[in-house]
Amino acid sequence: VSDTNLRISGDRLINRLTELGRIGAAPGGGVRRIALTAADRDGRDLLVRWMKDAGLKVRVDRIGNIFGIRKGTTDLSPVMTGSHIDTVLDGGLYDGTLGVLAGLEVVECLNDADLQTERDLVIAAFTNEEGARFQPDMMGSLVYAGGLAIDEALTITDLDGQSVGAELEKIGYAGDMACGEIAPQAFIELHIEQGPVLEREATAIGAVENLQGISWTEIHIRGEANHAGTTPMEMRRDAGYCAAALACRVREITREIGNGQVGTVGTFTLTPSIINVVPGEARLTVDLRNADDTLLIEAENLLANCLDDLRQTERVEIDVRRLARFEPVAFDTAIVERIETNAARLGHACRRMTSGAGHDAQMMARICPTAMIFVPSRDGISHNPAEFTAPEYLIAGADILLQTVLDLTASS
Amino acid sequence: VSDTNLRISGDRLINRLTELGRIGAAPGGGVRRIALTAADRDGRDLLVRWMKDAGLKVRVDRIGNIFGIRKGTTDLSPVMTGSHIDTVLDGGLYDGTLGVLAGLEVVECLNDADLQTERDLVIAAFTNEEGARFQPDMMGSLVYAGGLAIDEALTITDLDGQSVGAELEKIGYAGDMACGEIAPQAFIELHIEQGPVLEREATAIGAVENLQGISWTEIHIRGEANHAGTTPMEMRRDAGYCAAALACRVREITREIGNGQVGTVGTFTLTPSIINVVPGEARLTVDLRNADDTLLIEAENLLANCLDDLRQTERVEIDVRRLARFEPVAFDTAIVERIETNAARLGHACRRMTSGAGHDAQMMARICPTAMIFVPSRDGISHNPAEFTAPEYLIAGADILLQTVLDLTASS
Repeated sequence: VSDTNLRISGDRLINRLTELGRIGAAPGGGVRRIALTAADRDGRDLLVRWMKDAGLKVRVDRIGNIFGIRKGTTDLSPVMTGSHIDTVLDGGLYDGTLGVLAGLEVVECLNDADLQTERDLVIAAFTNEEGARFQPDMMGSLVYAGGLAIDEALTITDLDGQSVGAELEKIGYAGDMACGEIAPQAFIELHIEQGPVLEREATAIGAVENLQGISWTEIHIRGEANHAGTTPMEMRRDAGYCAAALACRVREITREIGNGQVGTVGTFTLTPSIINVVPGEARLTVDLRNADDTLLIEAENLLANCLDDLRQTERVEIDVRRLARFEPVAFDTAIVERIETNAARLGHACRRMTSGAGHDAQMMARICPTAMIFVPSRDGISHNPAEFTAPEYLIAGADILLQTVLDLTASS
Repeated sequence: VSDTNLRISGDRLINRLTELGRIGAAPGGGVRRIALTAADRDGRDLLVRWMKDAGLKVRVDRIGNIFGIRKGTTDLSPVMTGSHIDTVLDGGLYDGTLGVLAGLEVVECLNDADLQTERDLVIAAFTNEEGARFQPDMMGSLVYAGGLAIDEALTITDLDGQSVGAELEKIGYAGDMACGEIAPQAFIELHIEQGPVLEREATAIGAVENLQGISWTEIHIRGEANHAGTTPMEMRRDAGYCAAALACRVREITREIGNGQVGTVGTFTLTPSIINVVPGEARLTVDLRNADDTLLIEAENLLANCLDDLRQTERVEIDVRRLARFEPVAFDTAIVERIETNAARLGHACRRMTSGAGHDAQMMARICPTAMIFVPSRDGISHNPAEFTAPEYLIAGADILLQTVLDLTASS
């Protein structure tokens, strides 16, 4: 076969997704393979066995990232692909896992075809992408890309006081390779979309050109708790009303900014939370995202203006705490174009898109040209046992990954 | 002394408020004397002792209401005054207790002056006005006035499955008098305002002419939980946004209706309540009150219209559950005027007002001419250890109660 006619084995890929999904299978369906637990260890052990069976040299770095290396014919810097195999509390079969096992499937396919690439090909499984137990999320790739010092990361503890370092030792994945030692020439990650756009348009492939910037704030409003019957409206300092007004303003801001601006109030609590008491305190969170940082800053400013208005008109005190702020990430245009070209060649509908979620690729983009391939998520659902991507899309995504890896591992 | 120059003893009243407040005193301040607990029993025992010491004949009815009867010179139907001595979880010294002990103080004052009234005077302490443990609140007066059958009331259970009937037996206040047996010619209740109006106007006495109607609804909104980053705004069915829009609409409705209309969203919860997940479900409560039932119905209709709009525009499902609906109560104009006249005569600033809270008097208004006297609450605070009414106002309120009782117990 010529390289361009190579196709991955859908059966092998899907069988492996299913088999890995049995590790940490949750009683009510779904997968519970939280980072650095026994289930994560068992999943890693299976992955490492598969890597070794495929002839890969396996290395583990100090944050527990696993790398399976397939030697190329040259000493040029390698091409890396992969994702993560940890899940949220009750996740699905595909989030992260698809990117790792599709990378392994690319290796199997090259092996079957007895095909040697010029550059090394490295399959990566990054530690703790989900952040379900240890924060921050995307920890393994963040440390790998130099965004968090390894010694600091190892001391991070979960709610029970267990540290990342101790738990890595316990599961046997405290490796000795320096984080960042393998410096890739390019990184590419296949992932489910986790949103509804591709499915809605019946498009198999998303060529992800950028990743939204994220602004998370927690807002604490203090007014005055009062009797709901005896306190005239004009004498109230109703923290709950202010929180509601703010949540409505978030919606307006997304309309005013447009251009893909999204905004979400996901948490909202009142104190004392009694039917006949005017809320004295309210806490809510605001999640703002935009792929254009200038627009994201504008959205943040409009939110701040709204807080100032509420302080004045409603006589409340408002504290704002920034929980997270990530600038948008622009992926590598050349890789995005290769994805589009390969999709067209293989007859798959493809669209450029923005990732609304965070991924290991956003960290790797700090150190090398990077892009992502998305495949559809049924009903846009992820982080849920109902997460599903049709086999035809899994196969299409892995085939595009294969072709793009073939492009990138060529020496030119 | 002539009747009109009689004055209560402020020291005796305040000492008794303080002494009763020691029963159920909470560790962090305040009073925890929840209905039908051991603390309630101890409070009742002290009240009954005081009543007997003051020469009152004590009767207890089947719902545990306590009546201390001071005989008049005629067989005409009696005048009743009183309130309740149960508290919320951490209440203050005055809510309810003032009305009962001021009634007792009126008796003491009449005794000291060796003055016999024509009608009997009855001091009432109603069971479980607060509803902190057993619902509905105002239970004792509701049953007394025939609004709830005694046999039904006795079977009501708390969260631990203990019944009102069993707990009344346990504390020794399962009386044998039929509820409603003493049919008063009039009822008058002195109570703290529990709102800020009198204090703001430095007015000692509120002549309460009516009581707001109350409409409580719980609203359950079901949309779709989605990823906050990957779900475009136009594809969302955001239950949290709908709840916030509704809470803002409640504020607008109070402005549109005016005329004392109040509206409160006191509880507001989102599911799953995660910063980066569009809320799939929201629950909130709406408390609407107005002394004019026509306007209250209009407010309810505007709220219902808003729900219809949200169902359409946001594609959410909304269930509405009515938690409570009480029509407004108009008190007896003649008694209200007597309160005003007595306040003027004793040199106390007085204003007519509407009660925003529920009181035993609203139940008694079903069976006899009724009104209430309010005294100021500092900062409008009640149901809180910080509840406070200045001694001068306590005394003024009790003096107006005394004078009005003297008017009402005259045979004319």
